[in-house]
Amino acid sequence: MFESAELGHKIDKATYDAEVPKLREALLDAQLDLAKLAKFPVIVLVGGLDGAGRGETVNLLNEWMDPRFVQTHGMGEPSDEELERPMMWRFWRSLPPKGRVGVFLGSWYTWPILNRVMGVTKTADLDQSLERAKRLEKMLTEEGALVLKFWLHLSKDKQEKRLKLLEKDPKTRWRVTERDWKHFKMYDKFRVVNESVIRHTSTAEAPWIIVEGFDARYRSMTVGKVILDAIQKRLAEAGKKTTEIFAPPPLPSIDRLDVLKTLDLSQKIDKKKYLSELEKYQGKLALLTRDPRFKDITVIAMFEGNDAAGKGGAIRRITGALDARCYNTVPIAAPTEEERAQPYLWRFWRHIPRRGRLTIFDRSWYGRVLVERVEGFCSKEDWMRAYSEINDFEAQLARHNIVVAKFWLAISKEEQLRRFKEREKIGFKRFKITEEDWRNRKKWGEYEHAVCDMVDRTSTEIAPWTLVEANDKNFARIKILKTLCTQIEATMKKK
Amino acid sequence: MFESAELGHKIDKATYDAEVPKLREALLDAQLDLAKLAKFPVIVLVGGLDGAGRGETVNLLNEWMDPRFVQTHGMGEPSDEELERPMMWRFWRSLPPKGRVGVFLGSWYTWPILNRVMGVTKTADLDQSLERAKRLEKMLTEEGALVLKFWLHLSKDKQEKRLKLLEKDPKTRWRVTERDWKHFKMYDKFRVVNESVIRHTSTAEAPWIIVEGFDARYRSMTVGKVILDAIQKRLAEAGKKTTEIFAPPPLPSIDRLDVLKTLDLSQKIDKKKYLSELEKYQGKLALLTRDPRFKDITVIAMFEGNDAAGKGGAIRRITGALDARCYNTVPIAAPTEEERAQPYLWRFWRHIPRRGRLTIFDRSWYGRVLVERVEGFCSKEDWMRAYSEINDFEAQLARHNIVVAKFWLAISKEEQLRRFKEREKIGFKRFKITEEDWRNRKKWGEYEHAVCDMVDRTSTEIAPWTLVEANDKNFARIKILKTLCTQIEATMKKK
Repeated sequence: MFESAELGHKIDKATYDAEVPKLREALLDAQLDLAKLAKFPVIVLVGGLDGAGRGETVNLLNEWMDPRFVQTHGMGEPSDEELERPMMWRFWRSLPPKGRVGVFLGSWYTWPILNRVMGVTKTADLDQSLERAKRLEKMLTEEGALVLKFWLHLSKDKQEKRLKLLEKDPKTRWRVTERDWKHFKMYDKFRVVNESVIRHTSTAEAPWIIVEGFDARYRSMTVGKVILDAIQKRLAEAGKKTTEIFAPPPLPSIDRLDVLKTLDLSQKIDKKKYLSELEKYQGKLALLTRDPRFKDITVIAMFEGNDAAGKGGAIRRITGALDARCYNTVPIAAPTEEERAQPYLWRFWRHIPRRGRLTIFDRSWYGRVLVERVEGFCSKEDWMRAYSEINDFEAQLARHNIVVAKFWLAISKEEQLRRFKEREKIGFKRFKITEEDWRNRKKWGEYEHAVCDMVDRTSTEIAPWTLVEANDKNFARIKILKTLCTQIEATMKKK
Repeated sequence: MFESAELGHKIDKATYDAEVPKLREALLDAQLDLAKLAKFPVIVLVGGLDGAGRGETVNLLNEWMDPRFVQTHGMGEPSDEELERPMMWRFWRSLPPKGRVGVFLGSWYTWPILNRVMGVTKTADLDQSLERAKRLEKMLTEEGALVLKFWLHLSKDKQEKRLKLLEKDPKTRWRVTERDWKHFKMYDKFRVVNESVIRHTSTAEAPWIIVEGFDARYRSMTVGKVILDAIQKRLAEAGKKTTEIFAPPPLPSIDRLDVLKTLDLSQKIDKKKYLSELEKYQGKLALLTRDPRFKDITVIAMFEGNDAAGKGGAIRRITGALDARCYNTVPIAAPTEEERAQPYLWRFWRHIPRRGRLTIFDRSWYGRVLVERVEGFCSKEDWMRAYSEINDFEAQLARHNIVVAKFWLAISKEEQLRRFKEREKIGFKRFKITEEDWRNRKKWGEYEHAVCDMVDRTSTEIAPWTLVEANDKNFARIKILKTLCTQIEATMKKK
C-alpha cells in the first residue's frame, strides 16, 4: 500500500521553480471558476504521519490559492459546545459551501486511528468508525462535493530523519513535540492501523491519495497538481446528467395492506380522561426534564403527518410542559440560500441542540422522502439514497445519547376533508386552507405510498417511528406525550 | 419609578378567563402577520426581581404564541466559545431574524446590575454599561427591530411573600434557590440599582415597561397585551416612510485639502530592501502569533481601498507568515438571505473569531459608509448613524482585547488607470476588469469624499485607520505588515 510512497520521490529546484508559477496560475484560475459557478464544494482532508509535512502542505495551499475562497480548519481539541453534540457536528458546522474549498487538518479519521493505536478501542470499533466515515463520504460526494483525501507518508527511517531535520532548524523546531517522538516509537503499530484505514476507506468516489512526504518540493507539487486536476475535471463535468441508477421498485401493494391501513383510526378518549391524562403526562415530562440526569442527554422530537393532522396542537401540548429555556422549536420550510449551498442534511445538523435541551422539529429531514419524492423536487437517485443517509444521521444522534422520537400523525382522508372544510368555515386567517393543501390532497395515494416506504426503511430500533392515530386529537396528544416520556426515561436509565 | 407597580394590581379569575382566549387569538394572528410580512424582528427582554414571575411569563408567552415562531434564550452562564468573544456576541448569535419573536430571559442588563449590587463594579462602570446598552438598543430599533423591555417588580414584602408561596408548593419549590433568598436580603440595594438602570435606559424607542409581578393573572395579561399592541402598531406602521433626519452636511472641502491629499503616494522601496523587510516582518508576525500570550488575544485585520489598490496581494503577504490553522479570511460580498434578515452588523459579528486567532476581512462593515453611501444603497439616515454604530462595535471588540487593524489602501487616479489597463492587457480571467470597476472610477471624487468622512469619524485611538500609500505595492505591503506587528505587540504587552 505504501510502496510507491517509499521510493524516495523528489523534485529538483530548477524543475520546481519552473513548474510552480504555472501551477499556481492554473490553481487560481480553477478556483475562480469554482467560485463563480458555485456548483460544488471542495473538501480536502490532509492526514498522514507526524513530520510528513501536513501543516506545511496546508499552509502552502493557502499561499498558492486565493485565501478568500479557502477555509482551513485545524481539527484540534473540540470546544465544550462541540463536545455536547455528536462528534460529526464540528465537521458539519465547518463544511465549505458550494464554490469554496475547505481544508481540514485532521479529519473524521484522526481519533479512530489514535484510539486504535493507543489500544483504547478494538479493531471492531475501528472498523465501525471506518464504515461510518465511508458512508459519510459517499453521501458528501453524492450531494456533489469533491472530496480529496491526502495521506502524507514517510518510511520509518525517513520519519526519523525528518523529525531530526525539523528539530535542528530553529525556525521549525517548535513543530516537533514530545508527542511526535512518542508516536515515532510506535511507527510499526501506526503503520498497520494506517494501512488498514486506507485500505478500508479508499472508495471509488473518494480514494486516498498517498503522497511521499519527505521531499517538500515533490510533496507540494503533487498535492497541488492533484487538486488542480480534480477541480478542473469536475468543473468540466458539472452540468452533465448523472446516470440513472437502477433500483428495484419499492414494495408493491398487491393485497392493499400496509402499515397505515392497519391503524385503528377510530381510537379516541373522552374529554375527562384526556384532561387527567394530559395533566399526568405533562407533569411527568416536566419532572423528567428537571431530573439531574436530563443534563446528560438531548432530546429531538420530530413531527410529520398529513396536512391538518394536528401537529401544531400536539407540539404545544409538549412545550406547555417545559421550561422555555430548555427547548427550541424548528419549523422546516423551504431552505435558505445558505442552506441550499450545503448538503441536504446540513440544515438539520445546524439545529442539533446542546446537552440538557429538547428540540422539536415541525416537519423534518423526512421531507426528502415525502414531499420531495412525491412532488419530484429531487431525483429518484436522491431520495432513494436518502433512506440510508437518514439512518446514518439518526444513528449518530443515538450514539450520542440523543433521544430521537419520530411521530407520524395519521388521519383518514375523510377526516382531513372535514377539517379542511371546518377551517374554511372558521376563517381565522392562520387556519386558511391554501391551494397547496388541496393539491397535496389529490396526491393522497402517492403520499401514503411514500409514508409506508419511509416507515419500512427508517423505523429502527434506535430511532423508531411512532405512528399516531390522530383522527381524535385527544388520543393523539396523549399517545405522543406518553411515548416521548417512555423514550426519555429509557435513555436516562441507560446512563 | 416603581410606584405604579406596588399598588397591588390584580385581575379576577372571571375576567381573566373571559379575556385571555381573545388575547391569545389576537396574538396568534399578529404573529402570523409578522411572520408573513417578515419586515422586522421582535426582541423581548424579560427582567426583574427573583420570584416576580420572569420564568413563568416566558413560558406563558410560549404557550400563548405559536412556538414555531418564537425563540427563547435563557441567558445563563456563557459557554467557552462565548467567553472567548466580546460579551455581546452571544446576543448577536441569538437575535431573531425578521418575522420572528426572540424572548430573552436575562439580557445585557443582567451582569451589569449584579456586578454593581455585589460591589464588583463602581457606579461609573455601571453607567458606562448602561450607555452601551442604550446605544445598542438605539441601533437595533433603527435597524427596524421592535424592542420590548419588561421589568417585573415586587415590593419588598411582596417578594418575601412570593418566595414563600413558591417554596410551599411542591410543584414550584425547585424555582426558589438559596441565591434568591440571598438576593432578597439585599432588596434595598437591588432596588436602588434597578431604579437607576431603568431611569437611565428608558428611552423613547425602547422604554422599560414595569409590571407588578405578584398577581400572575395581572402580570400575564399585561405582558400579553403590551406585546400584542406593540406588534399590531408596528405592523400598521411598516411601509410608512420614515421622516428624513436633518443632518449638517459633512465637512466641505473649501481649500481642497483632505487626509487623502496629504498622502505622499510617491513613496517606494526597492526590491532588495523589500525582500529583506518582508522576511523580517513576516518572521516577526510568525513569532508573535506563536507567542504564548497570543492565546489571550484576538486579531482582526480589515482591508478597504480603491479598486486595484492591491488588497489581495497585501493579504497574501500576511497569511504567508501565518499557520493556516490560526487565521481565516472573510471576503465581503453581497449579504445572503439570512444576513439580510438581520441588523446590518450581524454578518460581521458572526465572523468574530475565538481567542488566539486572526481574521482578515477583505472589505468590511465600512461598506455602509462607502459603497452603500455613494451608490445610494441605503438612506442618508442609515449611513449617517453608521459611523457611531461602527465606533460602538469596534469599542466592544477593543474592550475584549481584540486588535482592530484597519487599512485603507490609497492609489492615485492615474495609477489606477495604469493598473486597469495593464490588467486588461494581461487578460488572465481573474484580473478581468469589469464594467463595475470603470463605473466606480467615474465616481472617484464621491468615493474620496466618503473616505475622508469615514476616516474623520471612525479613526479612533482604540481602532485607528492606517492610510497606506499604495502606488508602490512593496511600500504598501511592508507598511501594513509593520503596522500589524506593532498593534499586536502593543495589545500583548497590555495583558
